[in-house]
Amino acid sequence: MPQRSPLDLPEGDPFGPHNLPYGVFTTPHAPHLRKIGVRYGNHVLDAGAAAAAAASPHAEQLGADTLNPLMAAGRPVWQAVRAEVLDWLTDPAHRSTIEPLMHPLPAVALHLPFEVADYADFYASEHHATNTGRIFRPDGEALSPNWKHMPIGYHGRAGTLLVSGTPIVRPQGQHLPPADSSAPHASSPTPVFGPSLRLDFEAEVAFVVGAPSTVNTPVGLSGFHDHVFGVCLLNDWSARDIQAWEYRPLGPFLGKSFATSLAAWVTPLEALTAARTGPPARDVPLLPYLDDSAAEPGGLDLRLEVALNGHTVSRPPFSAMYWTAAQQLAHLTVNGASLRTGDVFASGTVSGPRPDELGCLLELTWGGRRPLRLPDSTRTFLEDGDEVTISAWAPGPQGVRVGLGEVTGQVVPATP
Amino acid sequence: MPQRSPLDLPEGDPFGPHNLPYGVFTTPHAPHLRKIGVRYGNHVLDAGAAAAAAASPHAEQLGADTLNPLMAAGRPVWQAVRAEVLDWLTDPAHRSTIEPLMHPLPAVALHLPFEVADYADFYASEHHATNTGRIFRPDGEALSPNWKHMPIGYHGRAGTLLVSGTPIVRPQGQHLPPADSSAPHASSPTPVFGPSLRLDFEAEVAFVVGAPSTVNTPVGLSGFHDHVFGVCLLNDWSARDIQAWEYRPLGPFLGKSFATSLAAWVTPLEALTAARTGPPARDVPLLPYLDDSAAEPGGLDLRLEVALNGHTVSRPPFSAMYWTAAQQLAHLTVNGASLRTGDVFASGTVSGPRPDELGCLLELTWGGRRPLRLPDSTRTFLEDGDEVTISAWAPGPQGVRVGLGEVTGQVVPATP
Repeated sequence: MPQRSPLDLPEGDPFGPHNLPYGVFTTPHAPHLRKIGVRYGNHVLDAGAAAAAAASPHAEQLGADTLNPLMAAGRPVWQAVRAEVLDWLTDPAHRSTIEPLMHPLPAVALHLPFEVADYADFYASEHHATNTGRIFRPDGEALSPNWKHMPIGYHGRAGTLLVSGTPIVRPQGQHLPPADSSAPHASSPTPVFGPSLRLDFEAEVAFVVGAPSTVNTPVGLSGFHDHVFGVCLLNDWSARDIQAWEYRPLGPFLGKSFATSLAAWVTPLEALTAARTGPPARDVPLLPYLDDSAAEPGGLDLRLEVALNGHTVSRPPFSAMYWTAAQQLAHLTVNGASLRTGDVFASGTVSGPRPDELGCLLELTWGGRRPLRLPDSTRTFLEDGDEVTISAWAPGPQGVRVGLGEVTGQVVPATP
Repeated sequence: MPQRSPLDLPEGDPFGPHNLPYGVFTTPHAPHLRKIGVRYGNHVLDAGAAAAAAASPHAEQLGADTLNPLMAAGRPVWQAVRAEVLDWLTDPAHRSTIEPLMHPLPAVALHLPFEVADYADFYASEHHATNTGRIFRPDGEALSPNWKHMPIGYHGRAGTLLVSGTPIVRPQGQHLPPADSSAPHASSPTPVFGPSLRLDFEAEVAFVVGAPSTVNTPVGLSGFHDHVFGVCLLNDWSARDIQAWEYRPLGPFLGKSFATSLAAWVTPLEALTAARTGPPARDVPLLPYLDDSAAEPGGLDLRLEVALNGHTVSRPPFSAMYWTAAQQLAHLTVNGASLRTGDVFASGTVSGPRPDELGCLLELTWGGRRPLRLPDSTRTFLEDGDEVTISAWAPGPQGVRVGLGEVTGQVVPATP
């Protein structure tokens, strides 16, 4: 039986012609030569070589070693390039040129697909914010009074965004001894130093800014599709003991900054048109710059799945997020802050209302008090050797799934 | 009388041969050609041209359009380049070559001297943290229980670091109506949207990372001089009403991210050797990675001055900072986070113990309750048109002052 062409995909392949995510890869023959790739089925198209062969007007952007030039070029170029790539992959006239440019996925190494500018992280799931508030602040209000009025967020460390697959070294830091953790605001707690004992994952969805904006020019809700290039899965690894001790009054810092894993594939927004959905009903009236009641649906029906050592532990629904990415972007820029190509803003932990829809161990084990059962063991927080894989898909056209790939990482012991 | 050579400085000039700060400039003849300059008196040496003329081994770093390549090269190169520049400026043998490469300061435009990677901001003055805690949280403890155990900080927005002189547009955003500001945690406060009514400055000192570090390799207290290239003044403009409403539980975000001003000159650490001083006595024992009791003095005797519309309103002493920059750097990396060339970490507001040593209006006016008297008016917070200039100097060798230049900015009305 002749081998199937990498251009002939099985019906309904989640990485078919309706998807076409971008990444950056190297081959073993040229491990330092980074190239832009487009995933198609289980192969990667060398997009720079294809553009050169086709004498594409976008050969320069596709021939770069990061996605930044393409991302910076703006939506009309994104649409034109997407149409070209689709043509290359599906028009039989190009088959003999394109087939040799398809690399089997297992034969390439994937890299961080773009240079990150600023990284902001939101807190947009009402379920997650409520649960976390109850766990961290049992004596206070679960949701802070501002939460329903604006998408609460903070800036994270852009320099430690790592591509999926990078091992995650257990961070060390200050935390209170376990006995004091439940009362971090006792009169004179004394911290200890050592490896985090409460290492966690957070299943998130990241949005990647392509077209920059100028300072003092808020992009508003309507600017979302002109500025955001695509979507990536993200794992916001969190050391809960470090975070609980450090976060007052200026927020999370070292409990998060040791590592944040980003998927190797950026799914263009255009591939998610069929996944658009309305956000949950709003409980309080929104200020005009956030009021999306008359706008196109700003939510996205992404179905996440979290696997711990290969066992599914949660299926967080992104459609349950209270705040949309368009609202987050409008908020991020309403004070005059500008956007740069490569800015990443993430959703915050995706948690749904059900116990099997929670996006982090803090919630799944209720602060470590209810261990999670795996087939052959239990977990409160992550142990050395544990591997966490977050994957997702979205409904595409005609019932086909759009694969968002995965972001994965294995915990390795703290550096002695 | 013949005009004095720009190479003949008056005795004790704060920008003399003991200082030699780096910047990036353009001239009116070539407004897009950025060049590295070294300030000498009131002139700027075209360092790239000087290096080319001298066939310097560092001509590539000095010929760049940002300081990043020089900063990345590491301490031995910084020392070698500093010695070369000093030789060019002071050895009469070079006079005829160098004199034509000196541009009068008023004739050049100054730019952000390096590409910023990550920006973190600390909170290292005990006086500022205590005062702020009392003002923002009158019913709680002024200092959070963690404060004396670690340098508390957060990540800010790197993309809105602006060079000194850039106008500061008054930010807009959500805040509580003034009547509610004193009780932001009432049961159901309702925010309004509009220009910030409580715009403030924060006088800070920033440290600029040159040599990068690798992930999972804490640099420790002893790594400070190998990784930090130099020092810059910084104004962390703050919209107090936006900040007060948004900051729980994840810290400052839009109340800070609209603009942060950075001085145009980076003073090399080596110019501040004579300014080293011991930090204040520590009240609680420190964990080993922060314990500097046996290390060289980690404090810096920098004398800041804040002028509002030309009138000095405060003289904050940097020597009063509880946490040193070396401790901040050790803390920032102890969890495994890496450093990149261009990372900036700032001290947080510099406030001393006295009422005329406070580094922001929030403190100087005690939350707006005690207006500050200027010769012809009063201020609670900044008004449109106000100009804030932070300057500083440090003791240098033989009683000479080392000038740190200034960071300045004028408030302009919110964009309609």
